[in-house]
Amino acid sequence: MSTLLWDRYRKHLCVCRDIELALDISRMKFSDDFFDVMNDKISKALADMQSLESGTIANPDENRMVGHYWLRAPKLAPTPELQTAITETLNSIKAFASDVHQGKILAPNGQKYTDLLVIGIGGSALGPQWIASALSSPADKMRVHFLDNTDPEGISDTLEKLAKNHVLETTLVVVISKSGSTPETRNGMISADLFLQSHGLKLANRAVAITGSGSKLDKIAHEEGWVKTFPMWDWVGGRTSELSAVGLLPAALQGINIDDMLAGAAACDIHTRSKKITENPAALMALMWFAATDGKGKKDLVILPYKDKLLLFSRYLQQLIMESLGKALDLDGTAVHQGLTVYGNKGSTDQHAYVQQLRDGIDNFFITFVDVLEYGAAAIEVDKDITPGDYLHGFLQGTRRALTESGRQSMTITVGRVDAKTIGALIALFERTVGLYASMIHINAYHQPGVEAGKKAASNVLALQNKCLELLSDHKPRTIDEIAAALKLEDEIEMIASIMTYLQANHRIQSDVADYYDFSRKFHL
Amino acid sequence: MSTLLWDRYRKHLCVCRDIELALDISRMKFSDDFFDVMNDKISKALADMQSLESGTIANPDENRMVGHYWLRAPKLAPTPELQTAITETLNSIKAFASDVHQGKILAPNGQKYTDLLVIGIGGSALGPQWIASALSSPADKMRVHFLDNTDPEGISDTLEKLAKNHVLETTLVVVISKSGSTPETRNGMISADLFLQSHGLKLANRAVAITGSGSKLDKIAHEEGWVKTFPMWDWVGGRTSELSAVGLLPAALQGINIDDMLAGAAACDIHTRSKKITENPAALMALMWFAATDGKGKKDLVILPYKDKLLLFSRYLQQLIMESLGKALDLDGTAVHQGLTVYGNKGSTDQHAYVQQLRDGIDNFFITFVDVLEYGAAAIEVDKDITPGDYLHGFLQGTRRALTESGRQSMTITVGRVDAKTIGALIALFERTVGLYASMIHINAYHQPGVEAGKKAASNVLALQNKCLELLSDHKPRTIDEIAAALKLEDEIEMIASIMTYLQANHRIQSDVADYYDFSRKFHL
Repeated sequence: MSTLLWDRYRKHLCVCRDIELALDISRMKFSDDFFDVMNDKISKALADMQSLESGTIANPDENRMVGHYWLRAPKLAPTPELQTAITETLNSIKAFASDVHQGKILAPNGQKYTDLLVIGIGGSALGPQWIASALSSPADKMRVHFLDNTDPEGISDTLEKLAKNHVLETTLVVVISKSGSTPETRNGMISADLFLQSHGLKLANRAVAITGSGSKLDKIAHEEGWVKTFPMWDWVGGRTSELSAVGLLPAALQGINIDDMLAGAAACDIHTRSKKITENPAALMALMWFAATDGKGKKDLVILPYKDKLLLFSRYLQQLIMESLGKALDLDGTAVHQGLTVYGNKGSTDQHAYVQQLRDGIDNFFITFVDVLEYGAAAIEVDKDITPGDYLHGFLQGTRRALTESGRQSMTITVGRVDAKTIGALIALFERTVGLYASMIHINAYHQPGVEAGKKAASNVLALQNKCLELLSDHKPRTIDEIAAALKLEDEIEMIASIMTYLQANHRIQSDVADYYDFSRKFHL
Repeated sequence: MSTLLWDRYRKHLCVCRDIELALDISRMKFSDDFFDVMNDKISKALADMQSLESGTIANPDENRMVGHYWLRAPKLAPTPELQTAITETLNSIKAFASDVHQGKILAPNGQKYTDLLVIGIGGSALGPQWIASALSSPADKMRVHFLDNTDPEGISDTLEKLAKNHVLETTLVVVISKSGSTPETRNGMISADLFLQSHGLKLANRAVAITGSGSKLDKIAHEEGWVKTFPMWDWVGGRTSELSAVGLLPAALQGINIDDMLAGAAACDIHTRSKKITENPAALMALMWFAATDGKGKKDLVILPYKDKLLLFSRYLQQLIMESLGKALDLDGTAVHQGLTVYGNKGSTDQHAYVQQLRDGIDNFFITFVDVLEYGAAAIEVDKDITPGDYLHGFLQGTRRALTESGRQSMTITVGRVDAKTIGALIALFERTVGLYASMIHINAYHQPGVEAGKKAASNVLALQNKCLELLSDHKPRTIDEIAAALKLEDEIEMIASIMTYLQANHRIQSDVADYYDFSRKFHL
């Protein structure tokens, strides 16, 4: 049995030596003729990707090119102007980071910047957060903090911490928003500005914008004379923007070698363009996603890196994969309700949590282990000839075997170490896998109609809140029913109840009854 | 339509006023007669819980009582000895934390302790980590750090950070392990001790153990004269130990009001013992889990709190739920392969990530929103009459509605605020839900055979590694095939290849060929 598995392992192992990355698919279930059966689909997907890389409109719903692969190979961009824009932006990022590190660009108080506050959400936060933790080291040149939500308490806690640590004056603020109108980011920016003002400081003279040309944020940055502005292009989507200014500027400021990140991604792209499927790790992964889920997301993808620094990898991939693949319609407009659910944290820690279910319970998943070969730290012995890293390796290998024995599927990505080059390669590997798989299941991986709809749904709630407050401005007490009737919005009664309770809890309106669930109580301003 | 939903909302709303918690199940799909159909099952589950609380052997595989509910209501413990043990331990935790805060117990250098390093994994880490972040405040009395894995780099990074921040001398170490033989925890402890020694310090005179009486760790603590030892009881499982010394000691040291946590849990327990299903939020949740998943885990549970401080709630629940429910066999020994998959992070942030898929994509989940009514911070205006918190509320409500409109199911737990009492109540709510649901699907929620098997699988890998190293100690170069043949372990050849590559990458053995994937290369010590 095990020698059969060994044969299967060697037969299917895909090794990319220059990026020290290998993909093992031997523990996935696929038949001998699977690659033949899938040949047309994957060939078409590779052709689609070639077309995408050459600059065709690969995001038809939004009439956009999809160019994130050009970011690490500017010569592939379809026009000289785009090539120049990419190269000049990269140079400008490196020059800016270097100037900050060398003290050529100083905080308004004349001291060197010590801290970085990144304000963004989604594609403008998850990538930078993942990189900041994965590539953090004692050599970091700045500490990085994030505002990635519109939770007043979360915003306040982060800002208060900067003040408490006496670094508010030497904090550089980077605001990231393509449109400049993302509410969470705008709210974070306004909150930070007010907080700085309450400490006798201001945002504008310490702020950098990463935004689309001509956006609301671009205008603010120019009007207020912000320190610097870097571009976001319409041909780079949020969840694939880690290797644009969005990810590279925070990384460079932290002290991460962004040239290495780009080199790792570019090298991986060369492998993942290969038409020879057995040598193309992205094509193999996409095929395995198809095999495991019947091309319909029937099983969840568990991402399990055995490495503390990769803890946020699954959250980054959740966005990249689920936002790309979770679509109602296919490219022909047929309802398909596609997707691929992603979760996971890190091993061996997770073996003391949900791996119990993976081993023994419902068979509704396939794993992708990430195995990092090198310790990354000085070795100590905990028993004769045994180091802590030996346990980490032993737990991964033991779990991989046990899952196979209980009929559960896994892939394993092995990398030499966690460094900028590897991280760049991993980003590129999964970006391409998503693109190929999306082609195979015939969907647009590059739009996110649900996110836009979500913003609209929220603004409807806010509009209703304003109507309620306006009605109550006459200070006359009214019940929920009376408010709904007065607004002629009887269908909205449950939402009105929710809004009233929320406003009451925060003392914005008064009620004669404290109980939030007395639906006959009266409210007034 | 919406007024029908409003009726359904009010009809099924479960309000627990004393703990300011409400559960809305109106957006779940269940038929009018569902509660009647399920009456026998849920009644039996409630009776099982009553029996469990009275001290019967509720974990038959391990022949143990299951007593975590006694921790917040000691009078319910079945013997006076247990009652005294619970009460005295609680008093001793509070006294110890107070002594540390007041400087009656000082660091070995004579200064007050400033930092806390918790070493544990699984149930001995996830709860404390969640609480440390959920209830962190500017009033914290100590900073809390964790070693929760056996990753050499992760361990080193955490310890180096303490040294870099000049707090190593004033760091109190809490080691948590029931048996004292959990490898990750032992490795973390040894690593911390060696690191302290390299700085002229030692672990023993700053260390506290939380462990089972007579365990390996208990013996070490006594032999080495550790500062203090607190008990872990065999009737409290790891994933339900947050309200034992495991969770309470780190929380108390951080400055969290543990009496409030216990009071919140105790108050919630009273609600969740109710035989009146419509007034019992745990019974309702358990029934909804059954309705959504057909009692077989057919859909994933997405936990989506709209609050930064609850970011780790889903990770905590992943362990509590998946480790409890993910079982191969039912109580009769029949193969059932049960489970309930849990994931999630926080809103509105996640709306810019996987919520795209939830809205539009594959219908393989049901959500539990957590809505926190109060801002928790001073309000600012980002537009006229609009605060950042209004957006948070609007995003939650808008998403809840949109999901309903696209036929996706959700529940909503509403709480007044995130504080110690609420957190205690949430812990109790989900503990009881898991217990009731496990009864309904007829499985043992209180063991974790897969975790034990995982430890064994890892130790087999380490044993094989030792055999390989022993064989190579003659310094004779051998291929993988030759090693397998010499050990008469041809079936283990793939594992031997993995071990050799790992050892080579970390310079523990030499090879004539650098390429890790040349399977014909020779190795020698």
